[in-house]
Amino acid sequence: MTDASAVPASHVDILTKNGFAHIATVGPDGRPQSSPVWYDWDGSQLLFSQTTGRQKYKNLLRDGHVALSVTDPENPYRYIEIRGTVVFDDDPDGAFINKMAKKYLNEDVYPWPQPGDVRVVGRVTPEHTTTQG
Amino acid sequence: MTDASAVPASHVDILTKNGFAHIATVGPDGRPQSSPVWYDWDGSQLLFSQTTGRQKYKNLLRDGHVALSVTDPENPYRYIEIRGTVVFDDDPDGAFINKMAKKYLNEDVYPWPQPGDVRVVGRVTPEHTTTQG
Repeated sequence: MTDASAVPASHVDILTKNGFAHIATVGPDGRPQSSPVWYDWDGSQLLFSQTTGRQKYKNLLRDGHVALSVTDPENPYRYIEIRGTVVFDDDPDGAFINKMAKKYLNEDVYPWPQPGDVRVVGRVTPEHTTTQG
Repeated sequence: MTDASAVPASHVDILTKNGFAHIATVGPDGRPQSSPVWYDWDGSQLLFSQTTGRQKYKNLLRDGHVALSVTDPENPYRYIEIRGTVVFDDDPDGAFINKMAKKYLNEDVYPWPQPGDVRVVGRVTPEHTTTQG
């Protein structure tokens, strides 16, 4: 187990794999919420796609603190938790969600859009990490 | 997607599989934390083993609200999130952690005890569920 502001070299590989990050947010009642997301790692920030209609997005606009735990898809007894703060960028042409569709589904265009979806990109700057395995 | 106080029949099977539940808690600073755990489902409560030295346990003694998201190990695009409140029971003879070792590792006795570990059983009563897939 380590505590570090940056992501340790021992576990950064998990962030480049096709796993699922379970993202914990705090709801309007102060209680935790959790859901799985696709992720990307750009070398310093963990990125995920988000639709603006979801409760998780509303939670994060109100309170940007987030924790994401990711198990290694090749060995679930290795994992990394990243805690940090999220900011959002627009994704008007879907470049980021399509990049994720390519990574996870090998599709050039995200195949599951819903009517009215507006997508943004969440960028998490790691402030604290925990690892195991 | 469904919201229900009980776990919907459509997704209860996930809780009987050997997946990982990512458990979100709220830390002393009000920020979320997340980590993966083994789980058991007794038909009405989700159970997990916990050592009393961990931050997560301290969080939950202070604030028993919890969210757990679990993807189907056979299809990660199916998942269930359970939100609820946790209470703890003692596990003095290790019956529960050994049951989990049997479920996940096919070992009669949990093989990875650490010196000084004191184990308890967290019991989560579902108050709200979300499903997908």
